[in-house]
Amino acid sequence: MSDSDAAFDDYKPTAEPSIRVVLMPKDTNAHGTIFGGVILSYIDIAAAVEVRKHTLKKIVTKAMHEVAFVAPVFVGDLVSFYTELVRIGRTSITIKVTVEADRAKNPGKRTRVTEAEVVYVAIDENRHPIQIRDQA
Amino acid sequence: MSDSDAAFDDYKPTAEPSIRVVLMPKDTNAHGTIFGGVILSYIDIAAAVEVRKHTLKKIVTKAMHEVAFVAPVFVGDLVSFYTELVRIGRTSITIKVTVEADRAKNPGKRTRVTEAEVVYVAIDENRHPIQIRDQA
Amino acid sequence: MSDSDAAFDDYKPTAEPSIRVVLMPKDTNAHGTIFGGVILSYIDIAAAVEVRKHTLKKIVTKAMHEVAFVAPVFVGDLVSFYTELVRIGRTSITIKVTVEADRAKNPGKRTRVTEAEVVYVAIDENRHPIQIRDQA
Amino acid sequence: MSDSDAAFDDYKPTAEPSIRVVLMPKDTNAHGTIFGGVILSYIDIAAAVEVRKHTLKKIVTKAMHEVAFVAPVFVGDLVSFYTELVRIGRTSITIKVTVEADRAKNPGKRTRVTEAEVVYVAIDENRHPIQIRDQA
Amino acid sequence: MSDSDAAFDDYKPTAEPSIRVVLMPKDTNAHGTIFGGVILSYIDIAAAVEVRKHTLKKIVTKAMHEVAFVAPVFVGDLVSFYTELVRIGRTSITIKVTVEADRAKNPGKRTRVTEAEVVYVAIDENRHPIQIRDQA
Amino acid sequence: MSDSDAAFDDYKPTAEPSIRVVLMPKDTNAHGTIFGGVILSYIDIAAAVEVRKHTLKKIVTKAMHEVAFVAPVFVGDLVSFYTELVRIGRTSITIKVTVEADRAKNPGKRTRVTEAEVVYVAIDENRHPIQIRDQA
Repeated sequence: MSDSDAAFDDYKPTAEPSIRVVLMPKDTNAHGTIFGGVILSYIDIAAAVEVRKHTLKKIVTKAMHEVAFVAPVFVGDLVSFYTELVRIGRTSITIKVTVEADRAKNPGKRTRVTEAEVVYVAIDENRHPIQIRDQA
Repeated sequence: MSDSDAAFDDYKPTAEPSIRVVLMPKDTNAHGTIFGGVILSYIDIAAAVEVRKHTLKKIVTKAMHEVAFVAPVFVGDLVSFYTELVRIGRTSITIKVTVEADRAKNPGKRTRVTEAEVVYVAIDENRHPIQIRDQA
Repeated sequence: MSDSDAAFDDYKPTAEPSIRVVLMPKDTNAHGTIFGGVILSYIDIAAAVEVRKHTLKKIVTKAMHEVAFVAPVFVGDLVSFYTELVRIGRTSITIKVTVEADRAKNPGKRTRVTEAEVVYVAIDENRHPIQIRDQA
Repeated sequence: MSDSDAAFDDYKPTAEPSIRVVLMPKDTNAHGTIFGGVILSYIDIAAAVEVRKHTLKKIVTKAMHEVAFVAPVFVGDLVSFYTELVRIGRTSITIKVTVEADRAKNPGKRTRVTEAEVVYVAIDENRHPIQIRDQA
Repeated sequence: MSDSDAAFDDYKPTAEPSIRVVLMPKDTNAHGTIFGGVILSYIDIAAAVEVRKHTLKKIVTKAMHEVAFVAPVFVGDLVSFYTELVRIGRTSITIKVTVEADRAKNPGKRTRVTEAEVVYVAIDENRHPIQIRDQA
Repeated sequence: MSDSDAAFDDYKPTAEPSIRVVLMPKDTNAHGTIFGGVILSYIDIAAAVEVRKHTLKKIVTKAMHEVAFVAPVFVGDLVSFYTELVRIGRTSITIKVTVEADRAKNPGKRTRVTEAEVVYVAIDENRHPIQIRDQA
């Protein structure tokens, strides 16, 4: 393992969310409810924040595994995206994202909304996959 | 099957995209590239357009199955989202979305970007699941 | 005609829309209705998609001819923008855009919303007009 | 003329813009330039501001006459939309909008960008045209 | 103190941010840098999240005290907004917001960006100030 | 004073707003009202427009002094941001912004919403403060 990776060795996951946002009327669909795509979009942003803690190489989204929505989200909800490292492969890195909603009308009571795993691949300037971890 | 379902019987899938958009600089992430979440968000919108052809009941996104990105998308790409009905269950409906990009610099040559299956559930005003197809 | 134009010779207009979008609450004005400017903005994007099929030179919007709105559009409408080439002049290219709405509550029944002609001019890096078609 | 119209009798057009905005990177197209549709969208908003000075009835955009872009607009430009009443018909009202850009690099020197006429129709709650001016 | 206030008595401030966002190209000004207004806008959202922990009454922004920007923010920065209750007056509530940036190129090293105090007033449906805490 | 400053000597403040916008549903918070942050964001844009009249050097927002909201703003309001130069220091420039709302339902009657002072600092390419006015 190279020196440039050393900075990541002492990273400890915490209970803090990777991103946390308030959903607004501009995030609604024609029915006035938050559509699933908004949450999927934030899941990708949150997972990319987690990736940064493990590598600074340029990465692209390779896959998102099965996502099941177990509870709805509403305008005004405070939505937290918690992330954790699942696995670092040779050229890929997999992040798990857990999404919780804190209702505007009932603050402090968190509702699990969904969870997902997102896979990223590190690429060079020609968009060819490269190793996440430098060789020793 | 009730009369209200009759309107959907003669629907024939066509080669036309359910939605088709040009990606703009406002859709880019900090690296200046389109982030995966933007595509996931449009996949949800496209699938909901397909659902309308089969039921007018209120639906919510229940799940998105594995999504693998096989090619990148860039600012200026014309991106088409093709949809087809996979299955209608008792309270759920599953849609497959296929995404193709037409590069700004090479119009007419389509590149497959990704495909996904999205599952929706029909709900009543209390958000309880209801049947997609009315009883005969 | 130069080789670089040859790629455009076999282009055949189809019935597919150049762009197709779902209108969202964020597209509404203070009355909660879609304002005309949103449609005008999409007309420009759709016409530029058609231009790409005929030239890859850099173009700028020169004019939009009379636009008459014959039917309203509502939040949730699926709006399709069909385009066709009207004329290629020496430095300009004119595109006709036809706009149809598919109501959320009545899918499959298309309503003509408006049509417009948009004129673009090809420009060089100093923003001077240049020929659309290269000399033979 | 009814009392409710009286408030509009003493309106005098001024040199102040109806709206004035700074164009941002989020307003750019794939080439990094402001696209014509953004300006068309603001023209509709500006004209509607002028309409308010003459009637408070609900109005919808009916038509936009020929628009010719005589100068480009760039990110950072301060763009002013001046409006004036052209004509009040029985159920319609026509507004002229003149657009000027103040370049970020050359403040105080205004460049005429375009001008347009927008026609609105007053409607009732069933979207039927109604008189702009109440009967005496 | 009424029962309805009891729920707030056991609230303990934590080290978690009230909101945390990644700044995107769409948040930039004409110079390609994040403009101060974007941060001010998020400060207001973050402070309102803190208010919810202390009262569910409808509130409006009354004032923002002196805000000094001591470090810049850049596209790609992960920006955290920490909040704490400063004071609950009869009809007003004051929140302190502290803003920290985590640079995309140097994750884990937080830079203090700014801090601000925002004052909200509780209002009834006629927009008249009402007591934050119900009478005992 | 250098020649490059001469252009600013004859600038005379006018009654025209630096920016003027119509507030839209996309600017609302979860309660459907315009949130204070939207106004703060426009104040920063308006003040930067005023700065341009006095220097073309690159500037960053340094501080915003106390802002008190004395009246609400609503969707549909036409909001004007008037600016004036307060003071030019060695490396800083202070702008006062006055905000007025013209209600959609009562055009022509202006309501004072708030006022603020924003301080900018001129910086060089290394983000070090530089003199606003060049040496004689």
